[in-house]
Amino acid sequence: MVIIMEDKATEPEIQNVVEKIKSMGFTVHRSDGIQRTVLGAVGEKRDVDKRNLELLQGVREVISITKPYKLVSREFKKDDTIIQVGTVKIGGDNVVIIAGPCAVEDRQQVMKIAEILKQNSVSALRGGAFKPRTSPYAFQGLGEHGLILMREAADKYGLLVVSEVMDVSQIPLMEKYVDIIQIGARNMHNFWLLRELGKIRKPILLKRGMSATIEEWLMAAEYIMAGGNYQIVLCERGIRTFENYTRNTLDISAIPVIQKLSHLPVIVDPSHGTGRRDKVRPMARAAIAAGAHGLLIEVHPDPETALSDGAQSLYPEQFNQLIFELNDIAKVLRKKIC
Amino acid sequence: MVIIMEDKATEPEIQNVVEKIKSMGFTVHRSDGIQRTVLGAVGEKRDVDKRNLELLQGVREVISITKPYKLVSREFKKDDTIIQVGTVKIGGDNVVIIAGPCAVEDRQQVMKIAEILKQNSVSALRGGAFKPRTSPYAFQGLGEHGLILMREAADKYGLLVVSEVMDVSQIPLMEKYVDIIQIGARNMHNFWLLRELGKIRKPILLKRGMSATIEEWLMAAEYIMAGGNYQIVLCERGIRTFENYTRNTLDISAIPVIQKLSHLPVIVDPSHGTGRRDKVRPMARAAIAAGAHGLLIEVHPDPETALSDGAQSLYPEQFNQLIFELNDIAKVLRKKIC
Amino acid sequence: MVIIMEDKATEPEIQNVVEKIKSMGFTVHRSDGIQRTVLGAVGEKRDVDKRNLELLQGVREVISITKPYKLVSREFKKDDTIIQVGTVKIGGDNVVIIAGPCAVEDRQQVMKIAEILKQNSVSALRGGAFKPRTSPYAFQGLGEHGLILMREAADKYGLLVVSEVMDVSQIPLMEKYVDIIQIGARNMHNFWLLRELGKIRKPILLKRGMSATIEEWLMAAEYIMAGGNYQIVLCERGIRTFENYTRNTLDISAIPVIQKLSHLPVIVDPSHGTGRRDKVRPMARAAIAAGAHGLLIEVHPDPETALSDGAQSLYPEQFNQLIFELNDIAKVLRKKIC
Amino acid sequence: MVIIMEDKATEPEIQNVVEKIKSMGFTVHRSDGIQRTVLGAVGEKRDVDKRNLELLQGVREVISITKPYKLVSREFKKDDTIIQVGTVKIGGDNVVIIAGPCAVEDRQQVMKIAEILKQNSVSALRGGAFKPRTSPYAFQGLGEHGLILMREAADKYGLLVVSEVMDVSQIPLMEKYVDIIQIGARNMHNFWLLRELGKIRKPILLKRGMSATIEEWLMAAEYIMAGGNYQIVLCERGIRTFENYTRNTLDISAIPVIQKLSHLPVIVDPSHGTGRRDKVRPMARAAIAAGAHGLLIEVHPDPETALSDGAQSLYPEQFNQLIFELNDIAKVLRKKIC
Repeated sequence: MVIIMEDKATEPEIQNVVEKIKSMGFTVHRSDGIQRTVLGAVGEKRDVDKRNLELLQGVREVISITKPYKLVSREFKKDDTIIQVGTVKIGGDNVVIIAGPCAVEDRQQVMKIAEILKQNSVSALRGGAFKPRTSPYAFQGLGEHGLILMREAADKYGLLVVSEVMDVSQIPLMEKYVDIIQIGARNMHNFWLLRELGKIRKPILLKRGMSATIEEWLMAAEYIMAGGNYQIVLCERGIRTFENYTRNTLDISAIPVIQKLSHLPVIVDPSHGTGRRDKVRPMARAAIAAGAHGLLIEVHPDPETALSDGAQSLYPEQFNQLIFELNDIAKVLRKKIC
Repeated sequence: MVIIMEDKATEPEIQNVVEKIKSMGFTVHRSDGIQRTVLGAVGEKRDVDKRNLELLQGVREVISITKPYKLVSREFKKDDTIIQVGTVKIGGDNVVIIAGPCAVEDRQQVMKIAEILKQNSVSALRGGAFKPRTSPYAFQGLGEHGLILMREAADKYGLLVVSEVMDVSQIPLMEKYVDIIQIGARNMHNFWLLRELGKIRKPILLKRGMSATIEEWLMAAEYIMAGGNYQIVLCERGIRTFENYTRNTLDISAIPVIQKLSHLPVIVDPSHGTGRRDKVRPMARAAIAAGAHGLLIEVHPDPETALSDGAQSLYPEQFNQLIFELNDIAKVLRKKIC
Repeated sequence: MVIIMEDKATEPEIQNVVEKIKSMGFTVHRSDGIQRTVLGAVGEKRDVDKRNLELLQGVREVISITKPYKLVSREFKKDDTIIQVGTVKIGGDNVVIIAGPCAVEDRQQVMKIAEILKQNSVSALRGGAFKPRTSPYAFQGLGEHGLILMREAADKYGLLVVSEVMDVSQIPLMEKYVDIIQIGARNMHNFWLLRELGKIRKPILLKRGMSATIEEWLMAAEYIMAGGNYQIVLCERGIRTFENYTRNTLDISAIPVIQKLSHLPVIVDPSHGTGRRDKVRPMARAAIAAGAHGLLIEVHPDPETALSDGAQSLYPEQFNQLIFELNDIAKVLRKKIC
Repeated sequence: MVIIMEDKATEPEIQNVVEKIKSMGFTVHRSDGIQRTVLGAVGEKRDVDKRNLELLQGVREVISITKPYKLVSREFKKDDTIIQVGTVKIGGDNVVIIAGPCAVEDRQQVMKIAEILKQNSVSALRGGAFKPRTSPYAFQGLGEHGLILMREAADKYGLLVVSEVMDVSQIPLMEKYVDIIQIGARNMHNFWLLRELGKIRKPILLKRGMSATIEEWLMAAEYIMAGGNYQIVLCERGIRTFENYTRNTLDISAIPVIQKLSHLPVIVDPSHGTGRRDKVRPMARAAIAAGAHGLLIEVHPDPETALSDGAQSLYPEQFNQLIFELNDIAKVLRKKIC
């Protein structure tokens, strides 16, 4: 930490701060400038509340130097993390497409969509079995039966299964049926759940909270990695802003930012990020052009009858056209859709 | 819903929308203006995704008329809800003070703070037993032992106990030791947890999510009430904005807004809402002046040694002075601290 | 407007609202549902303050149907507006690149950069002559001399000149030296300036205000068009959010949104939108992939010595590489850089 | 500035940064920790763009220590600034009420409102003569005639006149008729206008920009003070957030924050801050309870017929009741309405 004293801080005030810093376990470097004194607190403690210094008499500002995260950072691990699940590689120069309906509805729907994915060379099938709807009066998902249907369809067509865990109690089910466990935006801050997912050894797809900063998002990944589970894919899905024409504002710039700060792969969900089918194609292209390691896209055999989020699901033909465009854009960046 | 067609919408486009509305179970009222056609969809369905109409050809905009919540609304229940716990009444003209440390640390701390609260005529002791810290490297709370200590101190001094539940698995512990169960900001969107808390019969203190709109906050309360638990106290604790001098921006205007929309009591947490001790007093006064039904305040016998959030905890003397000021402000509004 | 009455609104309350609506010059359509009454106010007035109805007894909500803008909307003009300046076309399938330094510094700098632009087939030279710096202690621009230098360089290399107007008093200078007049983000809400720019006949490049909604941005364009100046290019440059790793959050999704709502061309400024050179390339690619009609990019012969915003200016070599990438991405969308 | 190097920064990288810092005119203090090197740049330059260092190889982060403002800060001037205009004092323990209609409409309206203000012991009459409406189709104000009417009414009833300047060209008019010149939220970032207002010697009422940070707001005040005009009253009027039930989110916590950072008086505008009459009273009380030095309130003899913002104007009786409440709350803080 760096502690900047006020211009008129007195010597006893400075001494008091020095003592407090020492009592917190740091070594102090003092630098007396012409206008003010600056104190450096040297040490590697990560759980310090800097406000305890800010409130001392004569202190103007306290600045943290140690980032709160470590394992996720590129300083800790220089090379890109590449997560291999079966034959699929996520990260590096690969562009992975994970697609499927918002919610699993019935056997026919899942089989149909899995077939469409296969025809488009997609690697992974996504679908919700437990649906955390904002309204208590809406469809809440098929539960375990939904997971069974996804597993069956994925096995038939050689796909991976990606599905969202809602609560600690569902982890065993997820371990049984799913290849990549998704943590939804609403649970990014659920440290209880993150801690438990750190104990298992399945890859995690961690969505950004709807108003999480990039640092908080990386800290959620750190929580999981601190438990020993290092296979994390980050997924940008839009943040809340004052703009209300779009459901969320998809933060495309988070992609190069994450790639500078962290070695973890980062993908984008343009479906939740925009909330409207006609915005999914341009934003999917933009994400790949910005360097994303992949996409999470909602597609439905018949969006008009979808039980949830049909409005943001692509029609199969639209999806097919999009895949072609994405291939061409990936080539510009010397990458390859898989 | 009201569906506004584009100025140049064709008759077949209008007919297509009419059919779609009917197929969703609504009756249609059509109004042809000079410039455009407006369709009214009459019916009381709450789980409709209006985007399914927005995407149809010729539709300019779709507006929901039915609010997504019902039980929490003042239209449903005109008079203020007053929640009685023991001899304490929350809501109406009462101003309740709930105070205590961020985290329960040990027996001595809890006993000391309970004594201080009693001396200040406070009704309820708050304290965290399970601490959902953003850093995996920080103090995580005493668990059940913390709840036992709070119960003992509260019983000795005639106080209520308020503590936060982090996960569905902790509900039985909460039912055993706690009088009012708190849902933290990070869990306001945890529908899994809300659903389970709808099944019990203890009062709930529901904090606003850090970027939740007022409507989403009321929907979270609706979730609990839909399960049959009607005793809910709403708690404003600051929202995330671009301003970063304060930890959050305490939305004082949410108080009169909630009081117009809902019959539920609404209190304010100026400690988390500002994150700094020196801002707690002015904001606590402001909340009461704006008409809040109470406050949730962090106070610690010795904030400098607190294991968490010491920087936003008041010293006992500051707390005492604040209570005096709040009494005087409450009188201006013809209310009474209890 | 649609006025939704409360469920328990009385007949006198409804009548009172009906009378008020009529007195505002509207015709009323009344629809009595099972639960509540809904009133439609038919007419085309644009300057109504709907809050005057919202505050009447028994009214739950008032919804505007008439959009506040007209001339900018795609309903008013179906086909894309293409603005031709000299031989350059902005809009439609053209992708225009406008580039140059943040501020004009001296003759040598401007000549050098104009040469670089020509080598990269760029159409327009941008540069600031009047610099509205946030600090009163920073470089404030060369004024008219800067405009003269830009004109000279542009004429030598066959480029257009784009520069920002800061105040009504500068309009005559702009008319004399500049081909496209830029309105900066801070002036998007300066209706005094917008009104005067509506009276001239030079194309306007209108940047989005740093916290303007898309609707407000379109209203600013409407202001200019209402004065008779129809040649407007919209420019997205990032909005303010809670995320502070990037200077602003570049709202790439505004591109498809604008293209649906309006016939005006929309370009993107990734330099101000991110504030850092290393984020400019990925975001420039993303903007073109999302369908932007062009880019506004800062490039400097020697960014390290730039008098302002050097950190977000590309090196000439980086700029050259970027142009190659953009050409390839534009081809995927069947567009062409010009 | 403090420059934090990456953990693995090499010695040549560190040397390169050291040279760059020196070339910017600073002295360098180097501190080699166990994990990383931290460089201190000592000097008092205010116009440095720290991004120029951030982009150098091996640099992790650069932190500014020197605040961008000086004259407005409490470090520069310890005691509260009290601005005296005629017999009215703004700042310190005085609570000033400035009230009146949104726009001056005609002679009768202004005279009536001035009489009402006098009956309520208000010090200053506010009213808009130039109205910067968001719609080009709405009422745009009476211009100079409006200022003449306000001056006449104010002189008759012994009040000050407060009115908003929209453009540099209006400054002479303002100097002629007005006692305190208001800068609206949309012009807070208009450095051209701020600079000109620094040259005159009338007190300025500076509203916070609708998405300005507190630091940017103080910088706008610094701009004016740097020109030699030291009489500035800051006015909080709500910031833009994702919450859309209220027009803006009134940031009450800005009051204690400003009072810590600056010696300038800070008042609050609950009328624009909420946009609805029924929210003005609670928020006005909250502002005074939080310690504001005054209020700017819209009141109209007949809000229903107001030409602008009638919905947020109080009725005369409501205003009278509010003044009584504010008096009582001011007493709790040992302050006095004037």
